[in-house]
Amino acid sequence: MKLEEKVVKLLHEKNLVMSCAESCTGGLIAKRITDVSGSSAVFNCGIVSYSNEIKEKVLNVKSETLMEFGAVSEQTVREMVKGVLAISGADIAVSVSGIAGPNSDNTDKPVGLIYLAVSDGIKTVVKKLNNQFTTDVRNSNRISASDEALNLILKMIGE
Amino acid sequence: MKLEEKVVKLLHEKNLVMSCAESCTGGLIAKRITDVSGSSAVFNCGIVSYSNEIKEKVLNVKSETLMEFGAVSEQTVREMVKGVLAISGADIAVSVSGIAGPNSDNTDKPVGLIYLAVSDGIKTVVKKLNNQFTTDVRNSNRISASDEALNLILKMIGE
Repeated sequence: MKLEEKVVKLLHEKNLVMSCAESCTGGLIAKRITDVSGSSAVFNCGIVSYSNEIKEKVLNVKSETLMEFGAVSEQTVREMVKGVLAISGADIAVSVSGIAGPNSDNTDKPVGLIYLAVSDGIKTVVKKLNNQFTTDVRNSNRISASDEALNLILKMIGE
Repeated sequence: MKLEEKVVKLLHEKNLVMSCAESCTGGLIAKRITDVSGSSAVFNCGIVSYSNEIKEKVLNVKSETLMEFGAVSEQTVREMVKGVLAISGADIAVSVSGIAGPNSDNTDKPVGLIYLAVSDGIKTVVKKLNNQFTTDVRNSNRISASDEALNLILKMIGE
């Protein structure tokens, strides 16, 4: 069974709805979940906030957070996940922001640095990836981040 | 060159930014655009409004529209594209709502019925698909709808 099928199955079993807020994965998490037939009962909303402006405006990430820590930071993914939970009213959500590459983001942060946050509104868990793919870098980082996002959901709601 | 690469290249050339609002494609359009390196300069926002509630709350689709015409309708995709343009401030946007299958949506609308709208804020063009795939129905409908969305963008900004 594919990872996204496991997530949809478990959400069904637990009668939970999820949402997501994506930056570097750019819709890949939402796409993988909605690949699964029957996902509409357990997934209601995905926000692809690809610019900082959209992170602020739609997800309510503070401009000070983006200025002080940058879009690729623990602080930003914490605010992104909080924002999408508030918008969607979902039971659980996951957020991702990172540098998929092949080029960096004009900061000193390396390609492959990715932060994720998963939250049920009470508990929030953050994970940091330091991927170092040497081939097909952008695609590999995006797949790796989406895998990790789905695994974080599974882990939080209990496999 | 892939369709999404053509779109990103043309947006760069024309110095335009796009956004999208997706229902049945569930993030696939945003995912395809952001597969392309350099897309962050020309794509700022994707809204995956998988439930009617999110279509209303985030994209400002009227509840009367959803009640009278349903989520899979010309009227709904018109309001979705208007909504995402307003949120994102992008130059051009595309929206999609349809029945990807394999099951219908508890209405009398058939699997494979998909509406798309593309708009630059002044002109809006709507397209209706009546796909009749017999194998790999869900995936085929989603790919077909995302191809069509990218083609509508190309057409509106001028190939």
